[in-house]
Amino acid sequence: MVVIMKPGATAAQIGAVIAKAEKLGCQTHPIYGEARTVVALVGDLTQITREPFDALDGVAKTVRIQEPYKLSSRSARPENTIIELANGQVVFGGPEIIVMAGPCSVESRQQIIETAIAVKEAGAKVLRGGAFKPRTSPYSFQGHGLKGLEYLAEAREITGLPIITEVMTVQTVPMVAEYTDILQIGARNMQNYGLLQAVGKTNKPVMLKRGMSGTIKEWLMCAEYILSNGNSNVMLCERGIRTYETATRNTFDLNAVPFIKETSHLPVVADPSHGTGLRELVPAMAKASVAAGADALILEVHPDPDKAVSDGRQSLTPAMFEQLMRDLRRVAVAVDRYIGEAPVNIDAADVLERVRG
Amino acid sequence: MVVIMKPGATAAQIGAVIAKAEKLGCQTHPIYGEARTVVALVGDLTQITREPFDALDGVAKTVRIQEPYKLSSRSARPENTIIELANGQVVFGGPEIIVMAGPCSVESRQQIIETAIAVKEAGAKVLRGGAFKPRTSPYSFQGHGLKGLEYLAEAREITGLPIITEVMTVQTVPMVAEYTDILQIGARNMQNYGLLQAVGKTNKPVMLKRGMSGTIKEWLMCAEYILSNGNSNVMLCERGIRTYETATRNTFDLNAVPFIKETSHLPVVADPSHGTGLRELVPAMAKASVAAGADALILEVHPDPDKAVSDGRQSLTPAMFEQLMRDLRRVAVAVDRYIGEAPVNIDAADVLERVRG
Amino acid sequence: MVVIMKPGATAAQIGAVIAKAEKLGCQTHPIYGEARTVVALVGDLTQITREPFDALDGVAKTVRIQEPYKLSSRSARPENTIIELANGQVVFGGPEIIVMAGPCSVESRQQIIETAIAVKEAGAKVLRGGAFKPRTSPYSFQGHGLKGLEYLAEAREITGLPIITEVMTVQTVPMVAEYTDILQIGARNMQNYGLLQAVGKTNKPVMLKRGMSGTIKEWLMCAEYILSNGNSNVMLCERGIRTYETATRNTFDLNAVPFIKETSHLPVVADPSHGTGLRELVPAMAKASVAAGADALILEVHPDPDKAVSDGRQSLTPAMFEQLMRDLRRVAVAVDRYIGEAPVNIDAADVLERVRG
Amino acid sequence: MVVIMKPGATAAQIGAVIAKAEKLGCQTHPIYGEARTVVALVGDLTQITREPFDALDGVAKTVRIQEPYKLSSRSARPENTIIELANGQVVFGGPEIIVMAGPCSVESRQQIIETAIAVKEAGAKVLRGGAFKPRTSPYSFQGHGLKGLEYLAEAREITGLPIITEVMTVQTVPMVAEYTDILQIGARNMQNYGLLQAVGKTNKPVMLKRGMSGTIKEWLMCAEYILSNGNSNVMLCERGIRTYETATRNTFDLNAVPFIKETSHLPVVADPSHGTGLRELVPAMAKASVAAGADALILEVHPDPDKAVSDGRQSLTPAMFEQLMRDLRRVAVAVDRYIGEAPVNIDAADVLERVRG
Repeated sequence: MVVIMKPGATAAQIGAVIAKAEKLGCQTHPIYGEARTVVALVGDLTQITREPFDALDGVAKTVRIQEPYKLSSRSARPENTIIELANGQVVFGGPEIIVMAGPCSVESRQQIIETAIAVKEAGAKVLRGGAFKPRTSPYSFQGHGLKGLEYLAEAREITGLPIITEVMTVQTVPMVAEYTDILQIGARNMQNYGLLQAVGKTNKPVMLKRGMSGTIKEWLMCAEYILSNGNSNVMLCERGIRTYETATRNTFDLNAVPFIKETSHLPVVADPSHGTGLRELVPAMAKASVAAGADALILEVHPDPDKAVSDGRQSLTPAMFEQLMRDLRRVAVAVDRYIGEAPVNIDAADVLERVRG
Repeated sequence: MVVIMKPGATAAQIGAVIAKAEKLGCQTHPIYGEARTVVALVGDLTQITREPFDALDGVAKTVRIQEPYKLSSRSARPENTIIELANGQVVFGGPEIIVMAGPCSVESRQQIIETAIAVKEAGAKVLRGGAFKPRTSPYSFQGHGLKGLEYLAEAREITGLPIITEVMTVQTVPMVAEYTDILQIGARNMQNYGLLQAVGKTNKPVMLKRGMSGTIKEWLMCAEYILSNGNSNVMLCERGIRTYETATRNTFDLNAVPFIKETSHLPVVADPSHGTGLRELVPAMAKASVAAGADALILEVHPDPDKAVSDGRQSLTPAMFEQLMRDLRRVAVAVDRYIGEAPVNIDAADVLERVRG
Repeated sequence: MVVIMKPGATAAQIGAVIAKAEKLGCQTHPIYGEARTVVALVGDLTQITREPFDALDGVAKTVRIQEPYKLSSRSARPENTIIELANGQVVFGGPEIIVMAGPCSVESRQQIIETAIAVKEAGAKVLRGGAFKPRTSPYSFQGHGLKGLEYLAEAREITGLPIITEVMTVQTVPMVAEYTDILQIGARNMQNYGLLQAVGKTNKPVMLKRGMSGTIKEWLMCAEYILSNGNSNVMLCERGIRTYETATRNTFDLNAVPFIKETSHLPVVADPSHGTGLRELVPAMAKASVAAGADALILEVHPDPDKAVSDGRQSLTPAMFEQLMRDLRRVAVAVDRYIGEAPVNIDAADVLERVRG
Repeated sequence: MVVIMKPGATAAQIGAVIAKAEKLGCQTHPIYGEARTVVALVGDLTQITREPFDALDGVAKTVRIQEPYKLSSRSARPENTIIELANGQVVFGGPEIIVMAGPCSVESRQQIIETAIAVKEAGAKVLRGGAFKPRTSPYSFQGHGLKGLEYLAEAREITGLPIITEVMTVQTVPMVAEYTDILQIGARNMQNYGLLQAVGKTNKPVMLKRGMSGTIKEWLMCAEYILSNGNSNVMLCERGIRTYETATRNTFDLNAVPFIKETSHLPVVADPSHGTGLRELVPAMAKASVAAGADALILEVHPDPDKAVSDGRQSLTPAMFEQLMRDLRRVAVAVDRYIGEAPVNIDAADVLERVRG
């Protein structure tokens, strides 16, 4: 840490900085310039924050040099974190790019099973779907809750696809963890520290979405909340940030993908559905996500987007999704990754007949 | 609601919009322009969202006309909400501007009692202090918890000041509500809907802070979550938003104060400490908050900001606070409000001696 | 400046930093920490930028300590800059708060003269009005140009009010400077360096508006472009910045007012008309601007806002403006400033009759 | 356009809206809902703005339906604009993705010629380099001006690469246009309307960079300023926008690429150097740009980034650039585009020897 004094800071003020630093166990190196004095702190500073120094009289500002995240940092662990599901058939963080797909909300048993079959046929490896939905309005549909989880589980049983679904409260963590394969923390809850601690105490993989105005550094610190509670299976999902631009739903910050791959060992997921909010932009930005180095994608697919209760505007049809998967495979290969081929022998007709029945 | 079709939308697409609207119980008025068709929806639209229309083929965009908030809107309730504490000695939403003050964190019994006496002597009406602290890093001090609540209660007993403190999780709502007079929802939890519902079921006044990137409309919808759960004593606290400007900690959006006073009947609190992040800017922005029409202020005051464990950089000393209160009274009068005079006959010496022991 | 090396930076990389610094004439102080090395540079660094160091291998980041602005900084010149117009009858930067008012655009001879009389009667000291208008669309009204300047000059002759108007291009600087008393640089041109240099070579006071996404530091550097060309009569106008919030036209960053008063000696103007974009919020935010410490206000007033060709939504009527001036005087006094009384004996009837002809 | 009245708007207020609309030549369709009245305007509205309606009493808001850009819109011109240079050897807007590369600033004759040869050998089709540099500080290096243009021209003569360079002022448009093949308008000048008009009157292709806080719609309106002055050879360059995130220099808004390809017929260029500001992120984001559908890339390459006078931190070395070009070719093919092969028989040794001589 470097503490920069104001021009004209007194010897007493500089002394107070040095005294505080030494009390905290650091060595100090004051440097007396023409215009200002700077005090450099040396030693193990991981537990030391800028705040006590910022508050001292005569201090202009402080600069932290060592990053405050420990467990999520690539310098702490150089090799990629690998997260395995379904007995190793689904691996995040390796050469394969995993595609997760499904509707925004689980709307009915038929809807989720139909979608699960469709996305599996196109090559998706994980089924997404919301049972508990965070909604801006208390008067909007809030999800089917437990019933939604049961439908997801049935869809998994039929297709073999592991599932990912959002958990919104500490109280429902055990219930959701019982059903799902991956716990999703939504953007609004990125800094809901109680919830982060609760999922940190489970043994389920967690996908942590970036908050609407979360910086990359804050986001990594939120991952740190999960990791430091004992759960090392964390992946980070870029889903767009809030900026002044309103032509798209969010500004999809793809810079975050290579930045995090440099800074952290955790797998990175890209969500072009929320990142754009517009169905017609999703294919281009899904391809861009793969090219930028994402380890996985999460995409909204709905059998009939016109009838979706939420996010229909950004949902792909199954046909669009199938075409996109073909296109994505080509881009993956061009960046020395791959997306697994779609299974050849699915006989879904029978299941669908029963479900639609 | 107005549904705007794309140029060249087909009659079938327009028909689908009309059919969906009528199924939802609205009357429709299609208007056929030269370049485009627009379908206006009429009727009770409070339960109808834009999403089902946005998702239809041929729709360019939809525009909601009626605001989606019902309970928080001034058109629903023209007169100001009045929130009373301490048997009517502290009234939010009336002509008096209420000043709440105290440290960021409750650090020790002595610290909070000393501060309580100091801010009361200067004219504060409510004592603030954090017992549970949301911190960016899991390795930072997280507050004294229950012990902090007990210290706050003791400070209230000594000074007679009601207290406000933050509640961060659903599980701790009963405990915090037992001790505090006002429940604070912090910026990071603005959209923690489970928590909003939980405080909505208590009978304690709630101060809802604006999220770092919360729009005014989202913020009012979050108030709606509390109000619709039965708690009508909600006040809204502007504490600065996140923008590209880094010279100050946040961008203090004072426009929100008169905007909300126009739009809603709920009291508005301004927090220039977080709004600026810099002690030297707090007095100017506190005065500006009063001039802009805030019903209350919340200010960080610490007996020794240099030693504060958090937010020392933005904390006022008791002497600065006392001066500021004098200045604020003049501004309040200039906008036809007032700030109550400081009590004249406090004999704090005895208490302080005991506490400092 | 402090140059922070990456963990594991080699001795050769550190040596390259030191060599570059010494070549540039600085003394260097390397500090070897456990995790990293930091090189502090000492000496006269005003001409040295971060860029050559940022680009070196092994450098994690650089931190500039000395602010790069020299002429605009309060440490360079502790006393306020005072700008006088109209033989000292209008003084910016002193105890009086100067109110500038008028329409967005000069629309006609009658309109500007009527407005000039109305705002003078209410106590305005400077008349504003746009002759050259920067418009988002090339198909919108672009202002009356020279004809508009002539109308402004006639309004000045009738009322005695000095005028402020925008100059948009280098070529028109001589023409506009011939007519106006203050040259306005608009938000879109904050970083139009050619234009800044051109107005810096005139002897007219300049009001430099903050760009829509200009940081305070960039803005001061733009003032530096004017000052370093020889024109020391610069004032800075906060007019709102662009953020994610769309309820108001801009986010009015009043923090900038006290921040600049601390950092710089230049007068600060607040523009609540653009800062809010909504007529009904202008009075509250004008009062807040005065309370925050602004040296002047600039306000849009139109005799018939419903008929304004631009910015009607944010323009006050003359009656609203007159009431606001009364209210502002009270707030000014509450912060130990004043706004001059309105002149008592204006006989405008005759002039108006002639103009309305 | 749709004019939405406030609840309780009077018949007279509604009548005023209708009267104003009819005066402007529109037909009107008032729709009387339970809570509000809406007035829809029909007819040729291209010349009609929202402003006169926004300003009327009783109006809550207005919504523009028809986009205000005419010449840049894809609905006005469905097929792609094709821009040809160098007798058709360089074509923007077709299947080939054009890579432009070179240093931020032209620093010396040797530097620009060396770089030109290096980037040509790797397959670049256009040479970039700044002769006039917009700099935040008036005390920073401002470019070599005319001398820089001459060096660029010499580099073109040697390599055959057409050149692109920035023009900053109206006065220098003729001089820069004489030397360059493409005129670049920088981000700070996106809304410098005088400059846009001036380049609109030349016959040189123009690359218009997006402003730091320019919306996509404003940016297209700026293109409209150039197009409506007679120059139809405009391309748009996404270079990152300003947001709250500071981990990267800008937030690279790749959503803009497919959004503009949908909305407009103009070629889109991506600038990952400014979009990230960090050399190590440039390759990933260059690949992402190609995958997202960009028609061209512009990249900063410097023979010795450590010694660059500007933007060294984001400049690639020639070796990194060569590797990147190989990688980009693969991604281009994966999205059914291509990047031309590097020329095989360059004998640069002789030239370099003379230049370095």
